[in-house]
Amino acid sequence: MCNHAAKLCGLLLALASSLPLRAEEATQPKPATLSDVLAASAPSDWRAVDAENTLYLELPAGRVIIELAPQFAPQHVANVKALVRERYFDGLAILRAQDNYVVQWGDPNAETADKARKVVSAKKSLPAEFDRALDEKLPFTRLPDGDVYAPEVGVSGGFPVARDPKSGRMWLVHTYGMVGAGRDVPADSGGGTELYVVIGHAPRHLDRNVTLLGRVVQGMELLSTFQRGSAPMGFYDKPEQRVAIKSIRVAADVPAAERTNLEVLRTDTATFARLLESRRNRREEWFHYSAGKIEIGNVSIPVRPAAPADTKAK
Amino acid sequence: MCNHAAKLCGLLLALASSLPLRAEEATQPKPATLSDVLAASAPSDWRAVDAENTLYLELPAGRVIIELAPQFAPQHVANVKALVRERYFDGLAILRAQDNYVVQWGDPNAETADKARKVVSAKKSLPAEFDRALDEKLPFTRLPDGDVYAPEVGVSGGFPVARDPKSGRMWLVHTYGMVGAGRDVPADSGGGTELYVVIGHAPRHLDRNVTLLGRVVQGMELLSTFQRGSAPMGFYDKPEQRVAIKSIRVAADVPAAERTNLEVLRTDTATFARLLESRRNRREEWFHYSAGKIEIGNVSIPVRPAAPADTKAK
Repeated sequence: MCNHAAKLCGLLLALASSLPLRAEEATQPKPATLSDVLAASAPSDWRAVDAENTLYLELPAGRVIIELAPQFAPQHVANVKALVRERYFDGLAILRAQDNYVVQWGDPNAETADKARKVVSAKKSLPAEFDRALDEKLPFTRLPDGDVYAPEVGVSGGFPVARDPKSGRMWLVHTYGMVGAGRDVPADSGGGTELYVVIGHAPRHLDRNVTLLGRVVQGMELLSTFQRGSAPMGFYDKPEQRVAIKSIRVAADVPAAERTNLEVLRTDTATFARLLESRRNRREEWFHYSAGKIEIGNVSIPVRPAAPADTKAK
Repeated sequence: MCNHAAKLCGLLLALASSLPLRAEEATQPKPATLSDVLAASAPSDWRAVDAENTLYLELPAGRVIIELAPQFAPQHVANVKALVRERYFDGLAILRAQDNYVVQWGDPNAETADKARKVVSAKKSLPAEFDRALDEKLPFTRLPDGDVYAPEVGVSGGFPVARDPKSGRMWLVHTYGMVGAGRDVPADSGGGTELYVVIGHAPRHLDRNVTLLGRVVQGMELLSTFQRGSAPMGFYDKPEQRVAIKSIRVAADVPAAERTNLEVLRTDTATFARLLESRRNRREEWFHYSAGKIEIGNVSIPVRPAAPADTKAK
């Protein structure tokens, strides 16, 4: 909401961080903005996205990149990769776009026995992986400001996570860009043949009701701008409204030259802690009031193109 | 995340609420779903949107309807209406669409003195209305589950509101569909010549940093699907990417036959309290786990077409 003059506003912010400090300010560390934190990050603060746990969803408008979360939904991740490797999704379609909620894709003919896409070696459905045992050994950067829905929330391995020490459980939570496996009424009726992504305010009431299995790390704007479907729940009621999926591939199966190599900021680092602080208390000149808090839905985890291999420090 | 078979899922839910109850269930009130609550609402649970405080933003794709909040931003609401009535916005454009954040409109030439749209009788800028004195006489339906950012949150007159009894202040909060007045760095540099709407997860760090003045009650899907701008902060860098605004009108100034008459569920009613409960604990068969909580960003306030005047009960 920087005004339009606010391209200006953006420029001012960029300038501000390079202005010389006044003498009295120079004696103590300057409160950091997000730009400051990222500019000061070390190469070791970033990790490459693992090609074996990355999907490329190829749409007519471009590539959407999904990082999978095998530590939270191992069976679903394995099954989605099996589906991808038997080309299950190629030529299927975006079935649903519901405003401020989800975009979902799968087989438009799933309910018509003779036309439905065959599942060959993968599984059609799986037991739910709504949550898992809380493992203290998994990295967990806890947010200091609490949460309306869960006893503890934070970030683990680049994913938004809730924990309940009392029940000894932890689970991925529904925030913008999270990807899950659609299901029917029975808990074990999902498995990955239909996938959805959150395109609106975090629908946290879905937590522990559906298996989340990954997060979009690039290309959300290709999904979030689909025309909304006019049938109930945002389904497209006319076949011609559906956008076709060109293909989904596991990045590791794509020739190196065609990959999009990304790095994600590690979330178990001092740099990430500083990033959280820069978002809890905005230091940019535009802000007159500092919230001093952050909610899990407002934590975004930086992603950047990986440096080409030959320019990397030896 | 109902599966595709989930049109099915939707149907089951619809059916479920019309199935006969078993004898033992019939003796106590059935836990209500949202559909149950709305079906049982009385005409008096709804209020007409006040035409004098409603804007029609006319886009090539259709009409977006904004309800203004004069009880929270009286000067900004008056000024935006003055701008609208001098046709300030007609022919201006959508300037910015930033994914998971905001869409913003105004004058593409605002910074070019000889080309900028003239402000005639309205004001170019105004003192901020970031918050207001807490008035216990304003209706306030408080949410029971707390909030990460504010001491109290709830709904007042159809708008999401936070309150701080200690400081004696209350303010509108940034949730999906809320509309505010863009500004530059000085707090008093806004005024309504540029307006933005939230199209993503509630950016609550903007609360008390910008003047909110209304809420989109119809047509969000026309705004949320704009192609995202590729310049910083989602600005469009090429003029041809900008969608033109046909006009903005105060509904009261539009001939009766061309109005879209809407009703909003009153938020200071027992029906709304039941609605909140139906959203805190989902009773639909699809849900296996009940959150038992609701966060302000997940409260949506029902809007429906008003019954034509001649069919209304006398």
